[in-house]
Amino acid sequence: MKVFSTIADFREARSQIKDRVGFVPTMGYLHEGHLALVRWARGDCDAVAVSIFVNPTQFGPNDDFARYPRDADRDLGLLAKEGVDLVFMPRGEEMYPPGFSSWVEVGRLTERLEGAFRPAHFRGVATVVTKLFNIVQPTRAYFGQKDAQQAAVIKRMVRDLNMNLDIVVVPTGREGDGLAISSRNIYLDSEERRAALCLWNSLRRAEDLWSKGERDAETIRQKMISFIQQEPKAKIDYVSIADPETLEELIEVKPPALILLAVWIGKTRLIDALLLGGNLSESAL
Amino acid sequence: MKVFSTIADFREARSQIKDRVGFVPTMGYLHEGHLALVRWARGDCDAVAVSIFVNPTQFGPNDDFARYPRDADRDLGLLAKEGVDLVFMPRGEEMYPPGFSSWVEVGRLTERLEGAFRPAHFRGVATVVTKLFNIVQPTRAYFGQKDAQQAAVIKRMVRDLNMNLDIVVVPTGREGDGLAISSRNIYLDSEERRAALCLWNSLRRAEDLWSKGERDAETIRQKMISFIQQEPKAKIDYVSIADPETLEELIEVKPPALILLAVWIGKTRLIDALLLGGNLSESAL
Repeated sequence: MKVFSTIADFREARSQIKDRVGFVPTMGYLHEGHLALVRWARGDCDAVAVSIFVNPTQFGPNDDFARYPRDADRDLGLLAKEGVDLVFMPRGEEMYPPGFSSWVEVGRLTERLEGAFRPAHFRGVATVVTKLFNIVQPTRAYFGQKDAQQAAVIKRMVRDLNMNLDIVVVPTGREGDGLAISSRNIYLDSEERRAALCLWNSLRRAEDLWSKGERDAETIRQKMISFIQQEPKAKIDYVSIADPETLEELIEVKPPALILLAVWIGKTRLIDALLLGGNLSESAL
Repeated sequence: MKVFSTIADFREARSQIKDRVGFVPTMGYLHEGHLALVRWARGDCDAVAVSIFVNPTQFGPNDDFARYPRDADRDLGLLAKEGVDLVFMPRGEEMYPPGFSSWVEVGRLTERLEGAFRPAHFRGVATVVTKLFNIVQPTRAYFGQKDAQQAAVIKRMVRDLNMNLDIVVVPTGREGDGLAISSRNIYLDSEERRAALCLWNSLRRAEDLWSKGERDAETIRQKMISFIQQEPKAKIDYVSIADPETLEELIEVKPPALILLAVWIGKTRLIDALLLGGNLSESAL
């Protein structure tokens, strides 16, 4: 496994590979969810590239950029064990040198949900992902379904700007009790860890209602909200039942429909998502 | 020479070419200026690709999109004669299908000069050029020095977003009397054609002052303005003496300095530019 911190060195190594390259962009502090993406890439492609970069431009001024967890040595150990070929681990100035002023903006899709609560978040995501795609030149890139809006934004961007790669959305990795695996779970104390289960349990409730024939989106949404509100440590940012491609709110639940939610557990903001009917990777491509 | 109207067909043909591809994006109605870019590409690369697309998103509501001149048959004849390999000539819907909503924005640089007079113009340019680069996958792309701010914007974007190609800026093609060759020159009647020379002649005056030792940008600018104002058919949008990379207005003229101007001649808006000292292609890369 080769590790590079400069764009020029990475490009040089990348240019030696003529076969299919699978790419997993990460912010490091890797967990089983990331490793699942790496394994999908491994299975699909001839070589696997992973980036580790805590991207400052996708954090707002009140977000957790400074305290976002980092552990490069551990990350590299995990990636080596998975047989990753290339790792790109740039410093901030390598990605955003002085004078940097170009941005990729994905409209509409980015204005709702996460975009409404985190202004400029998706601009930062779309821009850094564009940069990474141009540096890594992957055949396929892998994203987790947990960040469902991010996956929809990336797909929209790739299609609109004719980027020459495929986007694969991989099902969310979960703990034994169903909590979506996330780097931010480390912020939770044991009481919050228990409370955090309300996200997954509310999604299961929604799926249950849907499978029993409920088709009114507002009914499902309200039942999810009531359920989460029973947890005193939880504070809801949003619960949404939306078209998986446009993220427009649905009135009638027709599959595939995407349920997305963001909930504060104490001082930690968690998100999760579930697709009702259909495979996200196929449905939204 | 092969001509393609769909992205998929163009990509298929492009994927057969393993050597260096030079790319000249155009809005058609080709003139000697475009052909000069094609010849540079021919000299540098193994294969040459040209796009012909009058990009609606870079025209404002009051711009000349509808009346912009078009002549595809003549264009294809000219390109065939130059030994062009691939031509990409998409329809509007191929480039901007329903739901399109991703944009590339280049900050600061795009706010002044043309950007101030034509809001959203450079957003349209940056976006379509990004799309074309992703479709054509060129080794090098060629732009004219006449559109000096456009060249600076494209360079900034390529650098910021780590696009994997070189940008080459080619000196402005001129008529025998010095008028910059432009598709819009066709709008000029004979009296306006004569009047239009004031752009080039004001640039020559500026160069003359500079070569005689004048270093105060405001003095040169004012003399250019007075000169152009002697032409009753001319109405100035701007005269700028700026850093070629940032396009920030200069106080003291130190080479390389870029003089840019936009002037209405009757109902036709013309632009021109001249670099004082140094080669634009090298200086701004």
